[in-house]
Amino acid sequence: MELETVQIDLDTETPTVVLHEEDARELGIHPMDRVQLRYDDGTAIGVVKVTTGLVAVGQIGVTHPLTHLQGSVGVQPAPQPQSLRYIRRKLQDIELDRSEIRTIVQDLYHDRLTDVELSAYIAGVYANGMSLGETIHMTESMADVGDRIEWGEPVVADKHSIGGVPGNRTTPIVVAIVAAAGVKIPKTSSRGITSPAGTADTMEVFCDVELDADEIRRVVGETNGCLVWGGAIELSPVDDRIIRVETPLSLDPEGQVIASVLSKKRSAGSTHVVIDIPYGESAKVTSHTEARKLARDFKRVGERLDMRIRCAITRGDGPIGVGIGPAHEAQDVLEVLQGDGPPDLRSKGVRLASILLSECDVDADAEEILGSGRALETFRSIVAAQDGDPDVSVDDIRVGEHTRTLTAGRDGVVAHVDNSVVSELARRAGAPKDMAAGLQMHTGVGKEITSGDPVVTVYADSEPKLEDAIALSERAEVIRILHPDETLIEQL
Amino acid sequence: MELETVQIDLDTETPTVVLHEEDARELGIHPMDRVQLRYDDGTAIGVVKVTTGLVAVGQIGVTHPLTHLQGSVGVQPAPQPQSLRYIRRKLQDIELDRSEIRTIVQDLYHDRLTDVELSAYIAGVYANGMSLGETIHMTESMADVGDRIEWGEPVVADKHSIGGVPGNRTTPIVVAIVAAAGVKIPKTSSRGITSPAGTADTMEVFCDVELDADEIRRVVGETNGCLVWGGAIELSPVDDRIIRVETPLSLDPEGQVIASVLSKKRSAGSTHVVIDIPYGESAKVTSHTEARKLARDFKRVGERLDMRIRCAITRGDGPIGVGIGPAHEAQDVLEVLQGDGPPDLRSKGVRLASILLSECDVDADAEEILGSGRALETFRSIVAAQDGDPDVSVDDIRVGEHTRTLTAGRDGVVAHVDNSVVSELARRAGAPKDMAAGLQMHTGVGKEITSGDPVVTVYADSEPKLEDAIALSERAEVIRILHPDETLIEQL
Repeated sequence: MELETVQIDLDTETPTVVLHEEDARELGIHPMDRVQLRYDDGTAIGVVKVTTGLVAVGQIGVTHPLTHLQGSVGVQPAPQPQSLRYIRRKLQDIELDRSEIRTIVQDLYHDRLTDVELSAYIAGVYANGMSLGETIHMTESMADVGDRIEWGEPVVADKHSIGGVPGNRTTPIVVAIVAAAGVKIPKTSSRGITSPAGTADTMEVFCDVELDADEIRRVVGETNGCLVWGGAIELSPVDDRIIRVETPLSLDPEGQVIASVLSKKRSAGSTHVVIDIPYGESAKVTSHTEARKLARDFKRVGERLDMRIRCAITRGDGPIGVGIGPAHEAQDVLEVLQGDGPPDLRSKGVRLASILLSECDVDADAEEILGSGRALETFRSIVAAQDGDPDVSVDDIRVGEHTRTLTAGRDGVVAHVDNSVVSELARRAGAPKDMAAGLQMHTGVGKEITSGDPVVTVYADSEPKLEDAIALSERAEVIRILHPDETLIEQL
Repeated sequence: MELETVQIDLDTETPTVVLHEEDARELGIHPMDRVQLRYDDGTAIGVVKVTTGLVAVGQIGVTHPLTHLQGSVGVQPAPQPQSLRYIRRKLQDIELDRSEIRTIVQDLYHDRLTDVELSAYIAGVYANGMSLGETIHMTESMADVGDRIEWGEPVVADKHSIGGVPGNRTTPIVVAIVAAAGVKIPKTSSRGITSPAGTADTMEVFCDVELDADEIRRVVGETNGCLVWGGAIELSPVDDRIIRVETPLSLDPEGQVIASVLSKKRSAGSTHVVIDIPYGESAKVTSHTEARKLARDFKRVGERLDMRIRCAITRGDGPIGVGIGPAHEAQDVLEVLQGDGPPDLRSKGVRLASILLSECDVDADAEEILGSGRALETFRSIVAAQDGDPDVSVDDIRVGEHTRTLTAGRDGVVAHVDNSVVSELARRAGAPKDMAAGLQMHTGVGKEITSGDPVVTVYADSEPKLEDAIALSERAEVIRILHPDETLIEQL
């Protein structure tokens, strides 16, 4: 059937085409079926949605990944991709081999799988787990598509955190120390998707973070390090696709997490990596056992891929540092580099840098590099190389003007700080989109507190957003205060 | 955030809203997140797609299930539905209890789950199976939503086929015999989705099939039976939703199949059901073992729901009857009822009717009811009650004018007829949309054949469709002919 294309500006996750109900019936296809599209320059696959009005009979609506199609196209039913058989196999708990995993990754890369199918894959991996072999094949296959950076050096350091802990902004500190010690550390980071800030959001307070591969090479050439947003380069495009479906499902299968992290590191040319695994009641990893298993599996997969991996299992029972949100975290980071700042953030940054340097067989004292101001100097040179102001001071960093401080309602000891409530509070205040929005924490787990003491100050750019955050704090428990001898948490 | 609604005519499976990228960022939500919509008459949940052009900043596009929204609506991020936790639990192979299953069904009924989430549920059930308890709870929960028909009688008969076998049009024969025996049998059927005809398509050759619940009651009151399309009444709306995602995934978890069939029967008020389970190399059920397990599980779930179920495991190694496609199957059915017609279709119809009558404790001879013409008389009265011509003859049924007969390429015995190739051939010829399109089979499994003998005649309403079907027959094997002593099928 020949149909006339109509452009539809809709950001669909899979290449979607819109057919009129009558044409769909004529072709014998129904919603979510695939059609093959023949046009002058070649063929493409589209997934069908049906309308009775958005396009007319004889027309075909094309959405984002297909908007290059113009004029008349030939349309016919297309078969299901090969991957679907392998996804069913995974659901039957049959271990997939290298070529089957490669086919799934290729089909994802070429947009041949719908989100519904990808969801079934993620569900299969979550239900039946991934063997070590499967994780290795997945990591390699994912690293093999998209961009790749080669450094031509035996040691390229990197760092990753499993996440889930607000304010945990150690990355700029680790990069500054390691780069100052003479080791290349080209760090790409994410923006906050469900958190109030990613490292990329925090660094954007200081400088440009959207650099392409050539610019990254230049910055690392000048300073040994960089602190950029990974999304500007396509290091593991399939990973981005998988995460987009995992996030709404809240499924994070362990093998897929390992493949996700290590495929990106491999594409970035990293050889030595330290991985921060915080665990706690409201963190992503909730038990020590789980944290140790994840660490062991990271190391095993790394070994098979000739990457040296060290894992640090860390406290995730509450936020790290004082500030939460891009500007507030930027202040914490700058203060630590200047020799001051929140002690927990400082010690964590130094410890992670130490572990990474020792894994790289570099004889350097992280504490000394930070204490001497060399880390600060390197950090300022990275900021300069990324078009920021190298002379920035803490006072230059603007924070939200609309503020409110929440106070403790009773005396006692802080037994728990809820990471997800803290994150949501900062997000409602506007973070990470509003850089100046966020929180300053005034207490932490284990600290004594008296009724009326400040718990957290909320900063926002506007009064409605501040109100929205405050409204949440009235419903959800940011911190739990117990009397020192109290053991009962809740009576149901 | 207040946004102005814009109507978008797009048949989305979940209630989808389209936001401009800037508004989405402002709200801190990304594609596939949920938003709560506040309007004059209440609230609704929408799943977000993002655009930079289909709607402007300040607008919100609303699609089919939400097109009643008009003017200004309040939009804010909405939490994930409770079901998502239970879906994850199922993926962890934890058995779900009654209330958890009920919540999933309710969330599906109220359109609170996206297709991606439903896909994860189906994958979980496929990977980890469903216990007997889960299947029972699922069946009950599915039957409890949507329409329900009460008959106020102790015996209401019904019939179902697992499907996958073209031409298997026993239903009108069974209904005619059972209704003639004085037993109520209000039969709802499907249209062909991936097959060349459903019973509803075949019956539409004779009469109207889109009846509402009141009309069904009238027809059954007059004739004891009816033969209508189930889609016109909402007997198990959640089942329709699940099937729409199962179909493109080609996943058909056993427990879900049982819940799907029995929830519809329960909503239709049926008490005694015969289930036809054909098995064969190219049918839906491929082995005798699998067929027996399915039969046993159907009976067990039925017992717990106070329904009396009998299963007939039948031959599915090739089409039943001669005609395939609505008109051709209608001819077969009418011929059988007139005392002639394809012997396999006749004997299968009589056997299924016998089993059902005996399960209903009705002492009646199905063979006699058919042979005496009483079944034909009842069938004609049903056709009349559904606004058809009761005096229809086989010659009145028009078949496609464009025909081509495929012939055997060698001598031998027909070792295999491929159900899926036969179905696809009829579909390409235009069935079920073109009622007159279809096939006449001239041979079957086990029959001797000589080179040049007719194998199948293809009927279409137009030459291009006929050509399209013929083109398929040149690539795919409709029948496999072996010499009687030959054992090798293929050499690879």
